[in-house]
Amino acid sequence: MKTTPLLVKKIRSNGLDGFIVSSKGNITYLTQFPNPDAYLLVASNGLTYFTDSRYTHQAQRELRGIARLKKINGSAFKLIAQSCAELGLKRIGFEERDLPYAEYKKINSCLKTGSYLVPTHGIIEELRETKKAGEIAKIKKALKITALAMEFIRDFIRPGVSELEIAAELERFIRYQGAIGSAFDIIVAFGENSCHPHHLPTARRMKENDIVLIDAGVEYLGYKSDLTRVFFLGKINTLARRIYALVLKAQEMAIKKIKPGARAAFIDAASRKYIAGKGYGNYFMHSLGHGVGVNIHEDPSISSKSEDILKEGMVFTVEPAIYLPGKFGIRIEDMVLVTKKGCEVLSGSINK
Amino acid sequence: MKTTPLLVKKIRSNGLDGFIVSSKGNITYLTQFPNPDAYLLVASNGLTYFTDSRYTHQAQRELRGIARLKKINGSAFKLIAQSCAELGLKRIGFEERDLPYAEYKKINSCLKTGSYLVPTHGIIEELRETKKAGEIAKIKKALKITALAMEFIRDFIRPGVSELEIAAELERFIRYQGAIGSAFDIIVAFGENSCHPHHLPTARRMKENDIVLIDAGVEYLGYKSDLTRVFFLGKINTLARRIYALVLKAQEMAIKKIKPGARAAFIDAASRKYIAGKGYGNYFMHSLGHGVGVNIHEDPSISSKSEDILKEGMVFTVEPAIYLPGKFGIRIEDMVLVTKKGCEVLSGSINK
Repeated sequence: MKTTPLLVKKIRSNGLDGFIVSSKGNITYLTQFPNPDAYLLVASNGLTYFTDSRYTHQAQRELRGIARLKKINGSAFKLIAQSCAELGLKRIGFEERDLPYAEYKKINSCLKTGSYLVPTHGIIEELRETKKAGEIAKIKKALKITALAMEFIRDFIRPGVSELEIAAELERFIRYQGAIGSAFDIIVAFGENSCHPHHLPTARRMKENDIVLIDAGVEYLGYKSDLTRVFFLGKINTLARRIYALVLKAQEMAIKKIKPGARAAFIDAASRKYIAGKGYGNYFMHSLGHGVGVNIHEDPSISSKSEDILKEGMVFTVEPAIYLPGKFGIRIEDMVLVTKKGCEVLSGSINK
Repeated sequence: MKTTPLLVKKIRSNGLDGFIVSSKGNITYLTQFPNPDAYLLVASNGLTYFTDSRYTHQAQRELRGIARLKKINGSAFKLIAQSCAELGLKRIGFEERDLPYAEYKKINSCLKTGSYLVPTHGIIEELRETKKAGEIAKIKKALKITALAMEFIRDFIRPGVSELEIAAELERFIRYQGAIGSAFDIIVAFGENSCHPHHLPTARRMKENDIVLIDAGVEYLGYKSDLTRVFFLGKINTLARRIYALVLKAQEMAIKKIKPGARAAFIDAASRKYIAGKGYGNYFMHSLGHGVGVNIHEDPSISSKSEDILKEGMVFTVEPAIYLPGKFGIRIEDMVLVTKKGCEVLSGSINK
């Protein structure tokens, strides 16, 4: 079934006759047209797309599957409310996690008597969490470019180079491979900087025997990749070697439990318990993974608190880590696709 | 006066005794520490900073001017409400344009009886719209890097090169100059692609006599730049030459009206009326400019609908344009600083 009729069915089964989409990721997913300033209104007779004059010409040319295009000229929220009235919508859902309070208030105050807003969440995210073949192909291509980038950068890493220079070379390389850009700010961390999970590149220069952690991903036709590798170029100290082996083993233990029907929290626990058993439980302080697709972080959540159940077609990261404050951090991150009976490591060909 | 006491005074004068900051730009402005997953609570006895375990170690080390750091482990919103209770806050402001409806609802439901949330907007944005000397220095450095990038790329532009390759080289170059990255997705548009104000780079290769529009900016120590130049490398057709001269003149007419006390709408009108008078009014379909600082788009708004009045210390873009559908677009964008008696074109040294 195509996405729009499926979505219309879904909003009806939620007791709604209209649905305002304000999440940028959801709009990109439904229209395959990235636009930071747009809204969508879903109704049984199709999609209405709202954007301003900066985007209308391009939208007219490139948008597929849209019944009506409305140009925002003034208040977007008044226009959305007007469209709800024109279409005779009464129970109108909105995305409560992606609509600011002020916008909710404005739309609400412009609705006709008898129409009202209903907070919802997860309606489109649920469609997004299992990927179709076309989406998987784009993610695979994004990962392929990331793999090439990791291979390319290995030859560039040497004492004296800065974190920012490595990021610069990666940003250049991925675009020559056809990516529109990186999927997020690339993390390049030398030595002790790697103990911060989200360290951003600095002018710090690489010293002999520094470990080098790189977390990078690219965007390809609207879909993203996410991959972390740690490079050892000099002498590897015994502790780093030991921690690396531990994290790698923790990742293997999680990956082999992935299959449809498994609880995401159970996958997280597979890595976490192993790391805790070795005495490093306090040093793995983030969740094991997250879904990746149109957004770099999306459903499912692979964490100890997640209530998600794995389904065939889900794509997510598996990224156990140990961060030793002031010393170094080791994170190994791959992306997996849940298959009929287990999983495929989409980034499996990339050296660890 | 320092920012925190000024802010505390401001929230008191709004009748509030607490204030929840959820806007990422505002949090970065107040803490000078960029973090996508953080909240701030302002009260008369200082700032409370909320973030999760991925950022706490780095935050402890790098954050300045924070009274309390609270680690989010579970619901951030429950924790924020708890902190409000601990501090005895009753009238608690929140940023209605930057807090999703669901988060508002959660915080609200966790507050103690007698405490309540008050929607506000613009409280911190008003502090941000006039820049201090330190901020101006960072913006100038960001512009200096952008200027060097435009100079560098001129030699790289030649028939056969793709839009993506130009973006790739720019992304690399700016990092070698010390920028953390680009301030937004760089726009590179050849020929007819330039008629879309927000065209993203593609694999399209440059043909002889294509015009080349580049809109780029960088982030330097948390502050941004934004600049557009059009390059003519081959034979310039008569229409493009005429339109370029028109847009340049429209920009000059706006710039010479900029001074403290002038209405932003009046500055917009200076360019717009001139362009309309030449018969191209329908082809300049966005506002004349926007403030730039921590965010690439912030106050003031330089548009026909803006109610902003210019003040000394404001920094914004002046970017008139004419887009001829299917043919080409010309946009010339500079950044100005409002001075005591007029303005300084911060990007004035960059060839047009």
